Amino acid sequence: MSDAVAEAPKRSEKWEARRDEIIDTSAIVFARNGYHATGIQELCEVNGFGKGAFYYYIGSKEELLAAIHDRVMDEVLAGADRVVTAGGTPSAQLAGLGEELLDVIHRYPDHVWVFLHEFPALTGERAERFRSRRREYERTVEQVLRAGIKTGEFRRVDPWLTARAWLGMHNYTYLWLHPGGRLSARDAAKPFADIFLHGIAQ
Amino acid sequence: MSDAVAEAPKRSEKWEARRDEIIDTSAIVFARNGYHATGIQELCEVNGFGKGAFYYYIGSKEELLAAIHDRVMDEVLAGADRVVTAGGTPSAQLAGLGEELLDVIHRYPDHVWVFLHEFPALTGERAERFRSRRREYERTVEQVLRAGIKTGEFRRVDPWLTARAWLGMHNYTYLWLHPGGRLSARDAAKPFADIFLHGIAQ
Repeated sequence: MSDAVAEAPKRSEKWEARRDEIIDTSAIVFARNGYHATGIQELCEVNGFGKGAFYYYIGSKEELLAAIHDRVMDEVLAGADRVVTAGGTPSAQLAGLGEELLDVIHRYPDHVWVFLHEFPALTGERAERFRSRRREYERTVEQVLRAGIKTGEFRRVDPWLTARAWLGMHNYTYLWLHPGGRLSARDAAKPFADIFLHGIAQ
Repeated sequence: MSDAVAEAPKRSEKWEARRDEIIDTSAIVFARNGYHATGIQELCEVNGFGKGAFYYYIGSKEELLAAIHDRVMDEVLAGADRVVTAGGTPSAQLAGLGEELLDVIHRYPDHVWVFLHEFPALTGERAERFRSRRREYERTVEQVLRAGIKTGEFRRVDPWLTARAWLGMHNYTYLWLHPGGRLSARDAAKPFADIFLHGIAQ
């Protein structure tokens, strides 16, 4: 690793807001041109500041990539937490997880593009943190599947493999689910839940 | 576009075999390091030749990327053609398409990685050719869904959206379906078909 992993120290709200803005703008550039092909000079230009400010707000290009991944994972995990906390049947929870996930994909098309294409560029502890948070989410899906098998709502599917089928079906919407597109997140989430829940019903 | 689109003229079988070898080796490098971050010098080194040979066999870096995409699409379309030619019920055809697709993903992990991550780097007629071949495959899936709705095997799902659900579920296996892995293509294709066919059954 070429730079310190430690997150930049928390500063003022204004600093946080500016940092978030930089993360969002940079996600668009990474999504369009690729992470490796984008230089710090270009990031400074699109964000309208100099290299000093880049290091003040972000620290390194890889830290910026990690922050984009965190933005997506924060939202995805918060959505999953809402669903699990709300409770309900495993079927209702799986449908809820789908709706929350498609909502994040729909709201953050550039961040999600970067997330799904550039995660191998994270190294060391940043890669470890990303893998661990992604794994946490995958486990939530697997647990809902296990719960549904236990209650008899779902047949005896392989929770690991079935979670991958579910994740693929939902994650892959990033290719066509966009703000202003023909379909809203809910337009897709409802028929997806119908297919999946019928697909694994007892 | 920085170079001619026309495919290199067909040469001897030996030339073709060497070209295929270069495409396969380069797919590994692109998958590991990214298309933009890989230089022609590096491609020459891993393939054990000089720049003259690179231009003799390939022509340009983008032509190499297009050839990797073609390798995947050739296999995917040939598999789809086998399934449609064999006929059978729409359910059997959809299961067959899934098995053929996972087989390609399982056999070409690096090519498929490059395919799914780097397709936006194709430009002009190469991008057009790729989109048109991908669209051809998507239409095959949609047609099988429409046929199943017509026979009453499938309920009245939206063929476009349902094809995307099916494609996502299958394509996304590239993240974990690898040669030598725990699961074979068939190990995954069978339960995936079970989920999907139950999911859209009348």
